[in-house]
Amino acid sequence: RINQDRLWQRLMRMAEIGATPAGGSCRVALTEEDRQGRDLFIEWCRTLGCEIRIDRMGNIFAQRPGTDPQRLPIACGSHLDTQPHGGKFDGVYGVLAGVEIFETLNDQGIETAAPLEICVWTNEEGARFAPPMISSGVFGGTYELDYGLSRQDADGITLGEALESIGYAGTLPCGGHRLGAFLEAHIEQGPVLERQAETIGVVTGVQGSRWYRVTFHGQDAHTGSTPMAGRRDALVSAAHAIQAVRDIAEQQAPSAVATVGRIDCSPNSHNTIPGEVALTVDMRHATIDTLDIMETQLHKAVNVAAQQEGTDIEIQRIMATPPVHFDARCIEAVAEAASKLGYPHRRMLSGAGHDACHVARVAPTSMIFVPCAGGLSHNEAESATPEDLAAGANVLLHALLELAQ
Amino acid sequence: RINQDRLWQRLMRMAEIGATPAGGSCRVALTEEDRQGRDLFIEWCRTLGCEIRIDRMGNIFAQRPGTDPQRLPIACGSHLDTQPHGGKFDGVYGVLAGVEIFETLNDQGIETAAPLEICVWTNEEGARFAPPMISSGVFGGTYELDYGLSRQDADGITLGEALESIGYAGTLPCGGHRLGAFLEAHIEQGPVLERQAETIGVVTGVQGSRWYRVTFHGQDAHTGSTPMAGRRDALVSAAHAIQAVRDIAEQQAPSAVATVGRIDCSPNSHNTIPGEVALTVDMRHATIDTLDIMETQLHKAVNVAAQQEGTDIEIQRIMATPPVHFDARCIEAVAEAASKLGYPHRRMLSGAGHDACHVARVAPTSMIFVPCAGGLSHNEAESATPEDLAAGANVLLHALLELAQ
Ligand SMILES: NC(=O)NCCC(=O)O
Ligand SMILES: NC(=O)NCCC(=O)O
Repeated sequence: RINQDRLWQRLMRMAEIGATPAGGSCRVALTEEDRQGRDLFIEWCRTLGCEIRIDRMGNIFAQRPGTDPQRLPIACGSHLDTQPHGGKFDGVYGVLAGVEIFETLNDQGIETAAPLEICVWTNEEGARFAPPMISSGVFGGTYELDYGLSRQDADGITLGEALESIGYAGTLPCGGHRLGAFLEAHIEQGPVLERQAETIGVVTGVQGSRWYRVTFHGQDAHTGSTPMAGRRDALVSAAHAIQAVRDIAEQQAPSAVATVGRIDCSPNSHNTIPGEVALTVDMRHATIDTLDIMETQLHKAVNVAAQQEGTDIEIQRIMATPPVHFDARCIEAVAEAASKLGYPHRRMLSGAGHDACHVARVAPTSMIFVPCAGGLSHNEAESATPEDLAAGANVLLHALLELAQ
Repeated sequence: RINQDRLWQRLMRMAEIGATPAGGSCRVALTEEDRQGRDLFIEWCRTLGCEIRIDRMGNIFAQRPGTDPQRLPIACGSHLDTQPHGGKFDGVYGVLAGVEIFETLNDQGIETAAPLEICVWTNEEGARFAPPMISSGVFGGTYELDYGLSRQDADGITLGEALESIGYAGTLPCGGHRLGAFLEAHIEQGPVLERQAETIGVVTGVQGSRWYRVTFHGQDAHTGSTPMAGRRDALVSAAHAIQAVRDIAEQQAPSAVATVGRIDCSPNSHNTIPGEVALTVDMRHATIDTLDIMETQLHKAVNVAAQQEGTDIEIQRIMATPPVHFDARCIEAVAEAASKLGYPHRRMLSGAGHDACHVARVAPTSMIFVPCAGGLSHNEAESATPEDLAAGANVLLHALLELAQ
């Protein structure tokens, strides 16, 4: 079993980097804070005797040697970047569980046949560079390297430039490095485990998701002297669309979710009718068929919202990840470890996307969930208990040992 | 009669400062562009023999001496600041019509008993520092000087600091300088004159307006793993409120207007349910009674929007200007000048607020409107014909001469 306190202390130490007043973390991808988080991780891994490699997307691989030079590494890991108002556990937990496992194995003098590896994937959150999970996406062959490096943030800085500027543009080809298996431990980010009083989620797959950018073009005009009749208010169209997105999800309840997370209004002035409003739509479901239905409904709703107000629209799908089914052997390794260790567990789908979705395309993959308070994530108040986090790390340890035998 | 081409050329010269690619102007209050616009105005006035004074709110007064030292100055003017996506005429026209009139009087060797004066009011638009018309407001006694100087922009810079930084913090007490009358020429910013094919609006008053800031507090959470049931999405509440504001205006149609011009969403990330959304509401009507009804309806609608989604609200009235009735003698001076010059005209209320509203509290005041294309304003495409602009300036010239006799 791993050392619960040591894992917790490392989590709290990492959370000091980019700590927010409300108790969360702000380590947005490829910022100075992200660099500090990466440096700290590498320092810890070097102390534990790992070899560090960095690929062209800035993904970090910390390897603990095995006894059999023929075997591919059995990997764990997740990401160190956070949302702007992020918590202390999302992503970080999966990475630092790996560090704790390596230290436990060192303490006990345990060797494995296959090398073990911790992966840190760049820009998982997508808060700075859309789409999220871009670097595991390049690794898994979902995206081209050039596409990944050319993603831009709101200031027009490319991901490649940002990598250079924090010194994490590696030379290892992205995806050239093969893995024998990948297990990602993560907080659930939803309420299921907590409600069912279970400690471990054995994640069998991930629901599909689609992201859209919808822009309404109306006409800037004076709020005081422009009669109501004949206005082309882009924000009124946007308000219709926001409600329609909610309605679309509720029609497919309880299995679908749909959200407008971002809205940008122009010129955003008290006394000017908004001439242009852009919003992002995030829709998710476990089946492609339902995602297709929701997409059709979105197009209809956006058209109605535009017609009612005389605005023009652009609608663009900016991301589509299909539902993912994880590898049977990896799922079993997790389920057996949870049983053996006596933790109450359930098989479940992930509501959130994870790096594991893309890695699953090129390596046998599964995930381990632990509960988080109130199912809350992408929130500074995100929290999880030291006991549950240790339980997940123990399951990860035993599943890794099983796969690396 | 004034020189139409010379007026037009000055308008086009001023529009070069802060020119936008789409043909508008961006000379937001107390920016470097605003400084350049002010400098150019002062240079023109000095060349015409004016004395320049600047008060503590940065209001500029350019005086052309009269023959009777006992008389108070008869003034015209407006503002030189613009919206972020502003046009070439809003405000600027009233100021440069004054410059053209002074040059015409000089050319013809005409002297007036009372001095004539051009006023340039600071931060009329309110795009950078809310409320709008803040400096004519201090001049007219609506606001205290300290209140005016301490207004902050989005970066926390105060109006007083911004005045210092562009060198326009004057020493004349704001409001200490008395005016015998004030006439503001302005584009209508609405469709009435154009639709009726009339050239001159004789403005008898201005509708009242109220501005509110409404904030919904919900809960940041993950878009993918948070079920629809139990979400507290501040943007869904805001969408209800945006539509309710539209409905409130339509219930009082056609005489009322109501608009949400600004929305700020936090954390504004693709895959986080918005935890906090702030919006501004701008409501206007010619009577206090209807404004009161609309305010009550707004409170109700915001409460419903919050209850439906389980969000919390803050609602704050950030500005209230009562309906304004202009001075009978000034209105007559404008109407008689329009008749004498043979321009089709009508008496009308202004839909937009103007510096004249505040000045009207301390000096006899009226306004002159000219048509603008499509009634469009607060838009880079704002436009007016050289002929209509010249007509308005001729009416202003004759009304000023009448009042300054
Ligand atoms: N787990 C997580 O927060 N992933 C970000 C990508 C997504 O939005 O699902
Ligand atoms: N005329 C004008 O644009 N005034 C700004 C203040 C208002 O919103 O009415």
